[in-house]
Amino acid sequence: MSELEDLRAALAALSARVEMLEDQVALGQLVASYGPAVDSGSSRRAAQLWSDDGVFDVPPIARWQGHDEIAGMVEGEGHQGLIANGVGHVLTAPRVVVDGDEARGWNYALNIRWDPTEERFWVARVSANEWTWRRETSGWRTVSRVNVNLDGTQPPRELFSHAAGAP
Amino acid sequence: MSELEDLRAALAALSARVEMLEDQVALGQLVASYGPAVDSGSSRRAAQLWSDDGVFDVPPIARWQGHDEIAGMVEGEGHQGLIANGVGHVLTAPRVVVDGDEARGWNYALNIRWDPTEERFWVARVSANEWTWRRETSGWRTVSRVNVNLDGTQPPRELFSHAAGAP
Amino acid sequence: MSELEDLRAALAALSARVEMLEDQVALGQLVASYGPAVDSGSSRRAAQLWSDDGVFDVPPIARWQGHDEIAGMVEGEGHQGLIANGVGHVLTAPRVVVDGDEARGWNYALNIRWDPTEERFWVARVSANEWTWRRETSGWRTVSRVNVNLDGTQPPRELFSHAAGAP
Repeated sequence: MSELEDLRAALAALSARVEMLEDQVALGQLVASYGPAVDSGSSRRAAQLWSDDGVFDVPPIARWQGHDEIAGMVEGEGHQGLIANGVGHVLTAPRVVVDGDEARGWNYALNIRWDPTEERFWVARVSANEWTWRRETSGWRTVSRVNVNLDGTQPPRELFSHAAGAP
Repeated sequence: MSELEDLRAALAALSARVEMLEDQVALGQLVASYGPAVDSGSSRRAAQLWSDDGVFDVPPIARWQGHDEIAGMVEGEGHQGLIANGVGHVLTAPRVVVDGDEARGWNYALNIRWDPTEERFWVARVSANEWTWRRETSGWRTVSRVNVNLDGTQPPRELFSHAAGAP
Repeated sequence: MSELEDLRAALAALSARVEMLEDQVALGQLVASYGPAVDSGSSRRAAQLWSDDGVFDVPPIARWQGHDEIAGMVEGEGHQGLIANGVGHVLTAPRVVVDGDEARGWNYALNIRWDPTEERFWVARVSANEWTWRRETSGWRTVSRVNVNLDGTQPPRELFSHAAGAP
């Protein structure tokens, strides 16, 4: 039976490698869902990318916590005006580090808007983002997303430093 | 033999999980190939990202169907002028949902051009894209790519709403 | 024992598929690490994305070879000024082709800067990038990254042509 045991162990080891890949893909997919959710006004689906008490922190401008506040941001006049006017929330594929049932990630988000007067697009915001995720029964959810504008007021020396290691 | 059967079943289940990951990676790679193909003028290779009768729909501007029309777009004066002048077709990593031999995806595409008069880049177009793919014998191919400009004329409330669910 | 041998062979084949996926993910993660590394001033971590004698080539502007030169670029006055002023090195997810212990990739990099006078962001550079990687004992490292500006002076007909094939 030792050969069978060897096979079982090898299969378990391979399964663990597959789970690591699944986590990487799932978290990349979560990040790739944010822009389409908010640009289509899918407020509840956007909110559900967070855990029930998850935080979307945009210092020093705003901080939303929980599904109602995050959905409310999408449903608000400000955001709805952006959609009507023309906007893309363009996020890049994240650097992701998984540690059991927790994970962290870092990426960029561009907020690009249509200027109807000049009749051209302009980059309204370029931000550095740090995400903290938790594995819940329904899948990965965002515990915290911190978003800082790269306009020189908050250089991301600390926020991005943990993303910098070689994979 | 029951233990062997258990192992065979476990291996088959793991293989199915690996195939899901392979699909996600392959479709991400397909999307990542588009920009380099058109920006290098590789018209046939760009066209081959579509199925033989695949559609590239850019309402209300243009609609190309099949390899000859899509390759013709790349070979045309308009596109060749963009390359000579300086252009990047910058696509983001897609949200991808696979269902057997069919799949759908959603992402952003930036068309950024060099302005030789102003001597700086400008964002000529930011679009929301919905992709439909089919698994063919040679691999995944694009059945349809719909590309709408985010200039406020066609807010992607419908087009992006299917991308919005949590993964 | 033939059934056991069949299982072992199936497991080895599946393991090889998993390794291909791990390579794709690892190389995507390496690319996703570059922006956060240089925008946080993590000069050594940025350098360690290259092999010891790796080259970062930006023709015709600059060429850095080895960890000291690449770290020195990040630590230099020019780059530090960009960080203080507000900058994002925004890279897209790469097209990746793995061949054993070597791999190549292609993607875009946007250099977006804050203009404190105009109080808005501007796209300072859009580049086509070709990466060559090598599997080392510590993981994948960059042997060469060639970065050409898409301002029309160096259309990436050759550089991007190898990225253009269907996956």
